[in-house]
Amino acid sequence: DYAALPQIVIGVCGGDGIGPTITHEAERVLRFLLKDEVEKGKVTFKEIDGLTIENRAAHMKAIPDDVLAELKACHVILKGPTTTPRAGDEWPNIESANVAMRKELDLFANVRPVKVPEEGIDWTFFRENTEGAYTLGSCGFETEDGISVDFTITTTDGTQRIAELAYDFARKNHKTRVSIVTKANIIKATDGKFLKLCQAVGEKYPEITTDDWYIDIMTAKLVDKKRRTDFQVFVLPNLYGDIITDEAAEFQGGVGTAGSGNIGKRYAMFEAIHGSAPRMVKEGRAQYADPCSMLRASVMLLSHIGYQAQADKLTAALDKCMFTEKALTVTGRDTGCTCTEFGDYVMRTIETL
Amino acid sequence: DYAALPQIVIGVCGGDGIGPTITHEAERVLRFLLKDEVEKGKVTFKEIDGLTIENRAAHMKAIPDDVLAELKACHVILKGPTTTPRAGDEWPNIESANVAMRKELDLFANVRPVKVPEEGIDWTFFRENTEGAYTLGSCGFETEDGISVDFTITTTDGTQRIAELAYDFARKNHKTRVSIVTKANIIKATDGKFLKLCQAVGEKYPEITTDDWYIDIMTAKLVDKKRRTDFQVFVLPNLYGDIITDEAAEFQGGVGTAGSGNIGKRYAMFEAIHGSAPRMVKEGRAQYADPCSMLRASVMLLSHIGYQAQADKLTAALDKCMFTEKALTVTGRDTGCTCTEFGDYVMRTIETL
Ligand SMILES: CC(C)[C@H](C(=O)O)[C@@H](O)C(=O)O
Ligand SMILES: CC(C)[C@H](C(=O)O)[C@@H](O)C(=O)O
Repeated sequence: DYAALPQIVIGVCGGDGIGPTITHEAERVLRFLLKDEVEKGKVTFKEIDGLTIENRAAHMKAIPDDVLAELKACHVILKGPTTTPRAGDEWPNIESANVAMRKELDLFANVRPVKVPEEGIDWTFFRENTEGAYTLGSCGFETEDGISVDFTITTTDGTQRIAELAYDFARKNHKTRVSIVTKANIIKATDGKFLKLCQAVGEKYPEITTDDWYIDIMTAKLVDKKRRTDFQVFVLPNLYGDIITDEAAEFQGGVGTAGSGNIGKRYAMFEAIHGSAPRMVKEGRAQYADPCSMLRASVMLLSHIGYQAQADKLTAALDKCMFTEKALTVTGRDTGCTCTEFGDYVMRTIETL
Repeated sequence: DYAALPQIVIGVCGGDGIGPTITHEAERVLRFLLKDEVEKGKVTFKEIDGLTIENRAAHMKAIPDDVLAELKACHVILKGPTTTPRAGDEWPNIESANVAMRKELDLFANVRPVKVPEEGIDWTFFRENTEGAYTLGSCGFETEDGISVDFTITTTDGTQRIAELAYDFARKNHKTRVSIVTKANIIKATDGKFLKLCQAVGEKYPEITTDDWYIDIMTAKLVDKKRRTDFQVFVLPNLYGDIITDEAAEFQGGVGTAGSGNIGKRYAMFEAIHGSAPRMVKEGRAQYADPCSMLRASVMLLSHIGYQAQADKLTAALDKCMFTEKALTVTGRDTGCTCTEFGDYVMRTIETL
């Protein structure tokens, strides 16, 4: 309960590429919305600089120890996109920073809302965030005769807590339906267990209808304009949640428009769902980065720590200020508006609400 | 080389639910198109009845031994949808018949074309069909303290042969681009290997551009009307191929409109990508089942065994006869047309070409 805390510490990690630009902008808007709380000392912001790929590579660690200690001294974290090293590029083979943070801070739920009001879409995805195909990413191996093996792990506790969070959300928000998505017909031990346990949790919520789908057919259903508006709340294992939320975000205008909340019992971290766009930085266009996803993540952060009125204001302003359409009209320049100009525009809009 | 064979044996398995209805219709159209070849004895059809869920359950085997022997006596197989038993239903926990057939006949490539000419979509998916998350579906286990484990396996040979098939197809069909889709940033041993080996195969095709994507962002790209027409040929591990081809088929009108080819060095099997629709049978509406997907699968079969002219004719007729729009106008009845009436309509249309 954040209301009871003497002070709420919001950690801010810029990350890589355009990350610092858009995260800084989101912090500016948050400070504007929380002005009184910051003045009272109820809310404070703490910059955490060490989550860059250079620092992580220097320490050969997804999250260097001192950075992890700083993160653990916060209550909630706003995080910019971070570079994930991959085979063949200049960085050593360290784990993705957001995946590591999800595990280290036990952020077991990845919550992603997708809304397209004019099409009747109002979905909330509850993606299990610490297990599944993501658990043992560095334990896979290759035998001498060319057989490579990876593992998928699903635990009873891990499944129960994500299912309970999804159904609690559904109950609290008067949703009537929860859809469980797996590939339990093929991936029997782990997905079979996930399906069975989610169904068992669902039985404790008699007012809510439970249905279940295979992930292949669900990616098709989301495209089907006649059927997709029936869905409300989804609960899924890690990998399927990863896959289907990118597809879903596209209907809303792309991954650039979507934020994601990584929620645990002790900590919570809010981030953009897109990458760090190194090309924009290389081409000297970082100042034109679109901060919408970080601002959507900020809405989730505000709501999570109990500032619902501020969250609603920011949502209303963002709905009016959609970056892509408004970027030109704000400045009249044909290069569009900068990230800072867009932030100013959002704050001006908030003042008119 | 089918031209060199004294006789080509086409096995026909009706399967479950609406399977026998739509498969029988596809066979009727195939016989019509191959009339001369059947008369000459160059092509013969062989009915294989034992692939029903009742018979499979009685033998407690995904494919009973005598059915497997019959399948192995054919050159190519046309297969209707089969029931996949799942937790909690009336059938014992036996493996899916199509997954078992892919393994038993070593049908290592699942080839799925998706075309929407009016939108500029012309995709061909090459899904690895015998490994990945599907390999050891029955070897997963659960420990006493509630930890469930499943395995993913990727082999060097298995990856190379699907990559070569995809690139050979690209070369033969004058495609300029092959896109490799994995989640190699997380699933490092197996997907990392898949990506690396496909790239290495790609280097032997200098006229073709190779790019690679993560499966999450690719499901979004397929929705993006500005970007998706750039894609041509995809090569992907089993599970991602399963997921993304259902999404892709939806743009073409749904899984009911798509066929799939399961190709090996010795055998090939062609099937619908939808299920057996037991509800239609229960409600007494099986005779109204839409045979389009089986007819699209028949196009692939004809082309595979070297009857390209007949394949092109059937494609042209199907493009004119789209089931959903034409079903009513064929008969004037408001129940639509039956599967047989639709088959007649397709054959009449072929005669006018
Ligand atoms: C960057 C990547 C490791 C990450 C994931 O796979 O979870 C991203 O796609 C996401 O969804 O947050
Ligand atoms: C029915 C099911 C086992 C099968 C699969 O997962 O491969 C189907 O979805 C397909 O794509 O052919």
